Amino acid sequence: MKVRLLCLAALGLATSLPAAAQFAKPEDAIKYRQGGMAVMGAHFGRLGAMAQGKVPFDAKAAADNAEVVAFVSRLPFAGFVEGTDKGNTKAKPEIWKEPDKFKANASRMQEEVAKLNVAAKSGNPDQVKAAFGEAAKTCKSCHDDFREK
Amino acid sequence: MKVRLLCLAALGLATSLPAAAQFAKPEDAIKYRQGGMAVMGAHFGRLGAMAQGKVPFDAKAAADNAEVVAFVSRLPFAGFVEGTDKGNTKAKPEIWKEPDKFKANASRMQEEVAKLNVAAKSGNPDQVKAAFGEAAKTCKSCHDDFREK
Repeated sequence: MKVRLLCLAALGLATSLPAAAQFAKPEDAIKYRQGGMAVMGAHFGRLGAMAQGKVPFDAKAAADNAEVVAFVSRLPFAGFVEGTDKGNTKAKPEIWKEPDKFKANASRMQEEVAKLNVAAKSGNPDQVKAAFGEAAKTCKSCHDDFREK
Repeated sequence: MKVRLLCLAALGLATSLPAAAQFAKPEDAIKYRQGGMAVMGAHFGRLGAMAQGKVPFDAKAAADNAEVVAFVSRLPFAGFVEGTDKGNTKAKPEIWKEPDKFKANASRMQEEVAKLNVAAKSGNPDQVKAAFGEAAKTCKSCHDDFREK
């Protein structure tokens, strides 16, 4: 619960600041959010490989990767500032047309990866697998609605 | 000291794994390290703006930004795997010719941003300014030697 509140607080802070306060140029914001997603995706993918049995379960690696995913999950949404819907981006205009829905999606993802982090710390492969599945659903659902193919 | 040891441990882990274990394709490794650097750079830049008096010092923002920099500083070096010296990258071949020097640079940076994180938590602007300066030197020196202009 504490993690959830921290996530929501971080998200609130990130989305309430004006773009100019955070990024000098729109492309800086785009690079920032894509960078965060790339880092998160790499570590999430390693958890997925374990969850799907493609590589043997390694409790230490699972915990390390989940820690990174949970930490970095707080960051990229600050990059979806007004005026960054053009350029080198797959962001759909719906992000800015339906900001409440987008934020709710982000929060759900952050909650699920926080749970995945707890599961990974337990060292139990079945718990990691289940939590990975729930977290992956939140990625997919948000990408379906808000990211171009 | 604990932070330093953790940083070194993380770096050791990251650089000792074979590329195939971490990234499916060379461009994934390049995107990963550039993503991490972009995230770190954005937050480091906000500390710099405060350290240089371009924006008013904000203790909470300084602490938040330094926390992200310190955490993410552990990550990008895992992306400098063999075979990723070509493509969309400014990485110089020296990274793979002088790996010990490169790793020493990375460790120094991680140590200085860990100190910056401690300074930022103190809430003292002068300490943040001094620690930012030391950390910035490690960025510049490594970029000078190992990154194309």
